[in-house]
Amino acid sequence: MELLEKRILTDGKTAPGDILKVDNFVNHLIDVEFINECGKEFYRLFGDCNVTKILTIEASGIGIACITALGFGVPVLFAKKAKSANVTGRVYSSKVHSYTHGNDSNVFVSQDYLLPTDRVLIIDDFLAKGSALEGLIDIVNQAGATLVGAGILIEKEYQGGGNIIRERGIRVESLAKIASLDENGITFCR
Amino acid sequence: MELLEKRILTDGKTAPGDILKVDNFVNHLIDVEFINECGKEFYRLFGDCNVTKILTIEASGIGIACITALGFGVPVLFAKKAKSANVTGRVYSSKVHSYTHGNDSNVFVSQDYLLPTDRVLIIDDFLAKGSALEGLIDIVNQAGATLVGAGILIEKEYQGGGNIIRERGIRVESLAKIASLDENGITFCR
Repeated sequence: MELLEKRILTDGKTAPGDILKVDNFVNHLIDVEFINECGKEFYRLFGDCNVTKILTIEASGIGIACITALGFGVPVLFAKKAKSANVTGRVYSSKVHSYTHGNDSNVFVSQDYLLPTDRVLIIDDFLAKGSALEGLIDIVNQAGATLVGAGILIEKEYQGGGNIIRERGIRVESLAKIASLDENGITFCR
Repeated sequence: MELLEKRILTDGKTAPGDILKVDNFVNHLIDVEFINECGKEFYRLFGDCNVTKILTIEASGIGIACITALGFGVPVLFAKKAKSANVTGRVYSSKVHSYTHGNDSNVFVSQDYLLPTDRVLIIDDFLAKGSALEGLIDIVNQAGATLVGAGILIEKEYQGGGNIIRERGIRVESLAKIASLDENGITFCR
């Protein structure tokens, strides 16, 4: 998606340690009108898939998922990283490693809200090694729901997680796919 | 807002310990079309206030804030509960106590994204004792920005946090204000 690639080149910042900061329009300050354009692109890609639910993971996926879900007319379910008094009863859970935060966490969703009849689109901001996406796919499978695919804003393609998942026959659509990232700049996959 | 009160009576669940669970349409599964109606109500209330930014706190505020922000045509800034490699540089921070999770945490926003010229509307899902809202107000004040007010989905009015803040001259608008909550049911303020 050319609009997103341009925005990454304009506003994204690279930092040592393979960091691409997009916290000025994606994951701290959220440019909702821009994200709405990304949501329309997800609808163009998955709008004919009879999606019944959008699944994401807290926290930075939630805004993108909600804006996208408005276009689909379906609810959002977000996987939680900590159990609280607000979530009780039986859950599906999966272990996810965060390379950004440097820790493992169990993420979970209530079994009440993910059903075998659901057709699920996973939405998230980043895909790198794929741990978060693997966890969400695992949860969809535990529920016996149908996975329509995953829509990702920014994939670090060179980290390989997306292609490993694609090789299993899962549709993964990333609006910007980064081929390389270093102090000299950002190159997109062509 | 009658629509929200009705929905709380239909879908909300009370539990011992002053719990009102609305995780089937607000803070786990998110009914985005319903939240969009709440966002329109926030716009009716604050649409003439020249809001430049909507501030919320992760995680459950983000979806409501993003959907509301689409109507205002302004970006969302969400306060984070943990520093990560994605946030660097100087931050405004404030301590917030979560009664739901039973812990204190520092929440923060990057100083780059909250400016003295900003006119800020705070949006959140719940207001009870007011700790999260106090923290966000503190952050707005640290930035020297103008606080337009706070828009809350559900206020537990009997816990008093909202009225303490209103007594300081801050506009707090809650779409549903609960007067009492126990195993016998939910009563709204009239």
